Amino acid sequence: MANANVNCWPLLLIGGSSERNQETMGAFQEFPQVEACRLYTKFSARPSSIEAIPFVIEKVRYLRAVRTSIYGRPGACYVDIPADFVNLQVNVNSIKYMECCMSPPVSMAETSAVRMAASVIRNAKQPLLIIGKGAAYAHAEENIKKLVEQYKLPFLPTPMGKGVVPDNHPNCVGAARSRALQFADVIVLFGARLNWILHFGLPPRYQPDVKFIQVDICAEELGNNVKPAVTLLGDISAVSKQLLEELDKTAWEYPPESKWWKTLREKMKSNEAASKELASKKSLPMNYYTVFYHVQEQLPRDCFVVSEGANTMDIGRTVLQNYLPRHRLDAGTFRTMGVGLGFAIAAAMVAKDRSPGQRVICVEGDSAFGFSGMEVETICRYNLPIILLVVNNNGIYQGFDMNTWKETSKFRDPTAVVPPMCLLPNSHYEQIMTAFGGKGYFVETPEELQKSLRQSLADTTKPSLINIMIEPQATRKAQDFHWLTRSNM
Amino acid sequence: MANANVNCWPLLLIGGSSERNQETMGAFQEFPQVEACRLYTKFSARPSSIEAIPFVIEKVRYLRAVRTSIYGRPGACYVDIPADFVNLQVNVNSIKYMECCMSPPVSMAETSAVRMAASVIRNAKQPLLIIGKGAAYAHAEENIKKLVEQYKLPFLPTPMGKGVVPDNHPNCVGAARSRALQFADVIVLFGARLNWILHFGLPPRYQPDVKFIQVDICAEELGNNVKPAVTLLGDISAVSKQLLEELDKTAWEYPPESKWWKTLREKMKSNEAASKELASKKSLPMNYYTVFYHVQEQLPRDCFVVSEGANTMDIGRTVLQNYLPRHRLDAGTFRTMGVGLGFAIAAAMVAKDRSPGQRVICVEGDSAFGFSGMEVETICRYNLPIILLVVNNNGIYQGFDMNTWKETSKFRDPTAVVPPMCLLPNSHYEQIMTAFGGKGYFVETPEELQKSLRQSLADTTKPSLINIMIEPQATRKAQDFHWLTRSNM
Amino acid sequence: MANANVNCWPLLLIGGSSERNQETMGAFQEFPQVEACRLYTKFSARPSSIEAIPFVIEKVRYLRAVRTSIYGRPGACYVDIPADFVNLQVNVNSIKYMECCMSPPVSMAETSAVRMAASVIRNAKQPLLIIGKGAAYAHAEENIKKLVEQYKLPFLPTPMGKGVVPDNHPNCVGAARSRALQFADVIVLFGARLNWILHFGLPPRYQPDVKFIQVDICAEELGNNVKPAVTLLGDISAVSKQLLEELDKTAWEYPPESKWWKTLREKMKSNEAASKELASKKSLPMNYYTVFYHVQEQLPRDCFVVSEGANTMDIGRTVLQNYLPRHRLDAGTFRTMGVGLGFAIAAAMVAKDRSPGQRVICVEGDSAFGFSGMEVETICRYNLPIILLVVNNNGIYQGFDMNTWKETSKFRDPTAVVPPMCLLPNSHYEQIMTAFGGKGYFVETPEELQKSLRQSLADTTKPSLINIMIEPQATRKAQDFHWLTRSNM
Amino acid sequence: MANANVNCWPLLLIGGSSERNQETMGAFQEFPQVEACRLYTKFSARPSSIEAIPFVIEKVRYLRAVRTSIYGRPGACYVDIPADFVNLQVNVNSIKYMECCMSPPVSMAETSAVRMAASVIRNAKQPLLIIGKGAAYAHAEENIKKLVEQYKLPFLPTPMGKGVVPDNHPNCVGAARSRALQFADVIVLFGARLNWILHFGLPPRYQPDVKFIQVDICAEELGNNVKPAVTLLGDISAVSKQLLEELDKTAWEYPPESKWWKTLREKMKSNEAASKELASKKSLPMNYYTVFYHVQEQLPRDCFVVSEGANTMDIGRTVLQNYLPRHRLDAGTFRTMGVGLGFAIAAAMVAKDRSPGQRVICVEGDSAFGFSGMEVETICRYNLPIILLVVNNNGIYQGFDMNTWKETSKFRDPTAVVPPMCLLPNSHYEQIMTAFGGKGYFVETPEELQKSLRQSLADTTKPSLINIMIEPQATRKAQDFHWLTRSNM
Repeated sequence: MANANVNCWPLLLIGGSSERNQETMGAFQEFPQVEACRLYTKFSARPSSIEAIPFVIEKVRYLRAVRTSIYGRPGACYVDIPADFVNLQVNVNSIKYMECCMSPPVSMAETSAVRMAASVIRNAKQPLLIIGKGAAYAHAEENIKKLVEQYKLPFLPTPMGKGVVPDNHPNCVGAARSRALQFADVIVLFGARLNWILHFGLPPRYQPDVKFIQVDICAEELGNNVKPAVTLLGDISAVSKQLLEELDKTAWEYPPESKWWKTLREKMKSNEAASKELASKKSLPMNYYTVFYHVQEQLPRDCFVVSEGANTMDIGRTVLQNYLPRHRLDAGTFRTMGVGLGFAIAAAMVAKDRSPGQRVICVEGDSAFGFSGMEVETICRYNLPIILLVVNNNGIYQGFDMNTWKETSKFRDPTAVVPPMCLLPNSHYEQIMTAFGGKGYFVETPEELQKSLRQSLADTTKPSLINIMIEPQATRKAQDFHWLTRSNM
Repeated sequence: MANANVNCWPLLLIGGSSERNQETMGAFQEFPQVEACRLYTKFSARPSSIEAIPFVIEKVRYLRAVRTSIYGRPGACYVDIPADFVNLQVNVNSIKYMECCMSPPVSMAETSAVRMAASVIRNAKQPLLIIGKGAAYAHAEENIKKLVEQYKLPFLPTPMGKGVVPDNHPNCVGAARSRALQFADVIVLFGARLNWILHFGLPPRYQPDVKFIQVDICAEELGNNVKPAVTLLGDISAVSKQLLEELDKTAWEYPPESKWWKTLREKMKSNEAASKELASKKSLPMNYYTVFYHVQEQLPRDCFVVSEGANTMDIGRTVLQNYLPRHRLDAGTFRTMGVGLGFAIAAAMVAKDRSPGQRVICVEGDSAFGFSGMEVETICRYNLPIILLVVNNNGIYQGFDMNTWKETSKFRDPTAVVPPMCLLPNSHYEQIMTAFGGKGYFVETPEELQKSLRQSLADTTKPSLINIMIEPQATRKAQDFHWLTRSNM
Repeated sequence: MANANVNCWPLLLIGGSSERNQETMGAFQEFPQVEACRLYTKFSARPSSIEAIPFVIEKVRYLRAVRTSIYGRPGACYVDIPADFVNLQVNVNSIKYMECCMSPPVSMAETSAVRMAASVIRNAKQPLLIIGKGAAYAHAEENIKKLVEQYKLPFLPTPMGKGVVPDNHPNCVGAARSRALQFADVIVLFGARLNWILHFGLPPRYQPDVKFIQVDICAEELGNNVKPAVTLLGDISAVSKQLLEELDKTAWEYPPESKWWKTLREKMKSNEAASKELASKKSLPMNYYTVFYHVQEQLPRDCFVVSEGANTMDIGRTVLQNYLPRHRLDAGTFRTMGVGLGFAIAAAMVAKDRSPGQRVICVEGDSAFGFSGMEVETICRYNLPIILLVVNNNGIYQGFDMNTWKETSKFRDPTAVVPPMCLLPNSHYEQIMTAFGGKGYFVETPEELQKSLRQSLADTTKPSLINIMIEPQATRKAQDFHWLTRSNM
Repeated sequence: MANANVNCWPLLLIGGSSERNQETMGAFQEFPQVEACRLYTKFSARPSSIEAIPFVIEKVRYLRAVRTSIYGRPGACYVDIPADFVNLQVNVNSIKYMECCMSPPVSMAETSAVRMAASVIRNAKQPLLIIGKGAAYAHAEENIKKLVEQYKLPFLPTPMGKGVVPDNHPNCVGAARSRALQFADVIVLFGARLNWILHFGLPPRYQPDVKFIQVDICAEELGNNVKPAVTLLGDISAVSKQLLEELDKTAWEYPPESKWWKTLREKMKSNEAASKELASKKSLPMNYYTVFYHVQEQLPRDCFVVSEGANTMDIGRTVLQNYLPRHRLDAGTFRTMGVGLGFAIAAAMVAKDRSPGQRVICVEGDSAFGFSGMEVETICRYNLPIILLVVNNNGIYQGFDMNTWKETSKFRDPTAVVPPMCLLPNSHYEQIMTAFGGKGYFVETPEELQKSLRQSLADTTKPSLINIMIEPQATRKAQDFHWLTRSNM
């Protein structure tokens, strides 16, 4: 649902409960829907009458629910429409239309806090900016890019913060993520939460005395898990601008030849070399790095990248680059699987409407694809030229190859034959696309991958699905840290 | 999860919340799961420690949750296992194992109420038994069949009450359902709720003075929407036996040549003739009746029939016959779509374990199949010889044919091209089966349907999917009543 | 709210939410009331229209909510009436009145289970009956009394099971409670839960191999915490009758001169002697036993005894005797304080209506009285001749006397002066009664207590409050067990 | 619970659920407390272990719950402490203490919005400031007072916004409230919600084209019910300062001799005259205005005024003046009765600690006092010199006098004798104070009221309660509007 203000996309769920006069009688799908949505939404309500709909929803699409969805920290809202409303008649004059709600109000940080933040940044020995999803929602790209460039600061995007500043920007230290987090002495968070994705901001992934500067639209988020050195509450774009203006008052920039920059650049180089080595391996089946290396080669600069999966999403994120903000959609903070194809369809509808020709690339692990693969029918029904890549290792995290599989399957016990993390080897996911008239590719080599991708990108009239067979035991390159979020603190 | 007592199948959901020491910190998938399950379950809890698991679950699979699930009116239970429990160590001696819970306790109706019920039945002019899902859960088949046969009573099954007494029993008046409901003067409900499926027990679908005798395990269900003449609270099998013993005390039987039986038989005959006429139509594409007629011809007597959809489920239920209790699984009271393939897999696992060779036939509308079609991968992974029928009309209730579709699709507006109730015509759902190594059939004629079904039944080693193209505008035969549950009372 | 069937008292809460057309606008006391009541009630709903009220409530006072409240295990229900309903007009003809709901349906236990229970009882060496609140709700007094007397069985009432069989019955072993629980080899529970009040049915308070026979109306209650030897699901009165009839089939009775009876009688004698000794202490201030001994002396046989508090409720229960079922109301399973005066008012309204002259004695700890003491105004407003006893030890569990108090109060720190479990010494609660025109007594000696009680009972036209000063450090006599429910299992 | 930052008072509820290892077993007061508090709190959680308490509560009293309570829009938080935690032992070294949380972060409004607001204010013909509770919470008194005085603007406080600018300020137009609301063309809301208290901001209580400027800390509040002309999101004190600085840029002030000021002053004069006339009535029993007039005469300038009731709170608010911010506590937005004495105790504890000698005056309707009157014991136990005034009309809104009462009481039917809105006439509430050792006064004349108040104020060592008898039918002076919030829109 589009807002007049193109920046804001309310997330509104309109549901339908049973007819009101059959409630408590055992009506068709009778359930307390509003109550059931409470835990998942910012606002959940049922209009008390047809006349009240504009109040609850505020002018068809600009309403209390819409407003609540886009004001403050954005979130989903639920509006319940009982079944009998569908056929109810109402006197038009009894409806009081509400005007559209205004763009979300913008707030800025306290001037003194901005000054303090600038001073902390200027005194940093090993500074780091972390750019989160909140920065993308706030359209803060211009101001944050200036901060990065004018003051020569290294930055790191979170998964959905990618593209606020392009991933290929020389100051992006994504390839040295662990190093950057571990040794920074000052970290500025732009709309990024110190949750499990950022290891809660705690040692050993961070210095015990690292100074956090938190920039966020949500007051209650400030101070979560750590005691920040400075908190800047407000619209992230507005606050970035305040920071720019404050830092502008002196001639300072962070020395681009500092030891910190050197350390980071070295680590990036060695990590990139390791990735490149993996990517260039000729052995078949391919590994993740080979696959993503070739995909990245052909990725259109302005495409939407949608992704979900375990290794597929995690490794893919390190290789596939975003150049534009709000052009990466993935499983997000909650890591909910099953969202990929829905996101891809939504992105494709927006693209169709706004900039025809812009493509959507949806990178799915085979397990993740299993959650919502049937949406391929929807893609074909609406003829959306989405390119689906299924990175297929026959499993969740890791799978079995055909031989091991056959051996295992000898066992008789029906619950024993299939290890719980494995999926069926040799699945032809591409046929799910051809079943509905799209184009399907089964690829086993880099050359086949390159070719199928080229063809898919060339055809702007049809969706396609490339089923990419990889080594079932393929995994990430060695990491400096075990996955901290799983360990005790 | 099987119970020692093979009659009872607890419905237990074991979920996993985030690690306990990261709660409130933004942990991976942190959410109040126990609370979120409250509205949907009879019991929802998290064990306070590993040692407490047997108390909450009662000996691995026989526990408080298990017991609550199968005692009283059965229902789902949720047990939350925090992520950190997975690796926690515990001293075996500190665990107090609970013994298995006993079979569900059985209660019987008050003797005086049984006497009163018998008297009402004996004095009925136009009696009717309605056999619900509760009768199947209670394993009441033997007693209810005796009631039907010994006293010559007409009966009607609810969707999941089918098979408690075989559908082809001469006393089954399913083919005259509306007539039977509308003119009965005494109705005995065996575990059937007077909800929307039974039109709330209210006129005009029933006589205003119809006498209901409610037999149910749940006290709070008695008296819902109507004031019953007699209520018999207790285990449905035990109460049926009480009724049998009470009726046995006199020589009474309901006269098989009564006017009521004559009316019902005539109506059945004319309805069956109308169905048969539709079924025998030679025009292509086929209609629902033709399809189900041919499926019914080959349906193994002992197979599980799983079904979901709108017309597919509703019409299929009238043609496809069940001969055994608890062998029909469908969308149930709540009419939730997306359950079909899960049900089919569960039934196939039980069959594999208990009576190899027993088949599962899963009859899906194309729209319903879209909810969980990806489970075909699971079916193939476990190599379960399920036969999936997709009755394909390109739509929800009704679809468009290819020509109308193309015309409509000329419209440019992306939201306008596809009418909301239509799905993509000519979808090759059978390829979703072949994609994973199963057998797929695309059928357009009765002959193709017969042949593919024969082959599928012959092959006991592999799943198959038969994609059955029908007339997009196909619908039910004319009904005596509009869909009452949608109208005002 | 009275039911035609005098046995059943539905517990119905009628609440008022804000006006429907102001919802989501910040209306007066706007709140999701139905949702807020969900966790506390069996049924919580708002009628969708005035016309729907009879459906939700079923004929003013006999409705879905009423029915749900009294059918099955009884419980509270909530019906929400939005503020605007109060002034809404409706066409009388559009209301479909529902007839009164019938008396709760009665179910009985399975015959074979009854046989098994009878056999277990006959073979018991050290049997015990526990009579719970469920037996009182079920009006099972006649049948259970016969069981006790005909078979010479010892019994124990739970707090609100008191009076089902009179407390002064020679078979009542309340005075040897711990002993009886600890050494019984067969225990029959009549509507009593194995919760904290009964120490969960676990050692060391019970023999590890004690055989429980559970008689309950609620299937899900059976098997809680222990594995019962026999479960008898059904109406407790009907099941008791079944047990009677089954036991009647043989000539058996439990030998009244058994070692078990001897042990119990000895323990009772010594406990009663200890109580009597405490009761007869002449020292002042009085102790609990002295107080209750004198109250018991004058307690009318047919009075309602309402009670709440800690020691007051616990000790009072052992001394004050109930002779009639459903004549004791206390804090119940949940031990919620603040219910006492409300219960007393309800009981007095019933007495006024049903048997004028019947008295209500409300025994309150001083702390408990603090929760709802202002209801004295209501008592006086309706001129209900309730006798309130406040057993006043200046504290929760234990208090301070005036001298210790003054010393303590020397400390300056406002949070330190008053120990958290103490209340103000020398509080004149009786003045709260005189403030509203009732009669107040401040008593410090047994003689004053006797006299004030005599006067209060003599005056049937006025409420009175007797403020009974006791030794602040008074406590229970020594117990065999520490409070098990607070220890680890 | 005091915060280092004296400005912020977190509202933290610490509750105690049952022991964890008895959960699901029927433990003492077992209940899902965290879930039950969800609807009422901003944050509700149970620490997973003792070690986690500092994380959940953040250093004993400065924690996630504390922080959430005071950051953003303030609100209550709940922390659940299972009973077994009380005796649990823990290694001190395993606890990671959190440092105190910082003062709430401050945000400011967008500069352009501030400019726009200033321009709307400068162009207002009939401006009005409304000062809400949010302005008090934000400590915005200095800045808002400057705005009022520097630019000669009329203002109106909401109930708990009273005292931010003193009520006796010449620019306060409280005495012409309805007039001011109805004819203002520009209204600036400082932390005041457009809820039922402000008649939702809708006609006929407001001009249809009134321009609202909303200043609020909560983004989601902006645009509720009306479309504001300007929204200023941020800390209300900071934003007021921004407004001051912006308005300072020109020489503008609102003309103190404008027609608007004249209208308001005239209306105030006539209303004050009407009140004064009522106040000076010599007839007995007294009316509300007489009572409050005399109370106001002696009210110490720096006292806390606590109030609850219907007419008592509403009329009292118009006469009793506040001179300091955050010194008025009443039933608030939700109009919950029963909060008065708790508020008074909390205020008295703060006063005792912070500025000994500062008094608390608690003005209670007799009905409101009935909710929590027993807290008088707490007041006396802690010896807090609170002055309780019970304005006693024997009823809710209106009562009966003794004669009418006696007549009514002749009716026999127990439910009929007492009209539902009446309380017992001639109740001696002052005895509830004397019962616990405080000072009680029963007053019927202005002279008695004056004298008792003088004595109560003189005695700084003891609490007192003045029971003020007023005319049972006393009511408000005639209003221009019926109570809009009760009518349809």
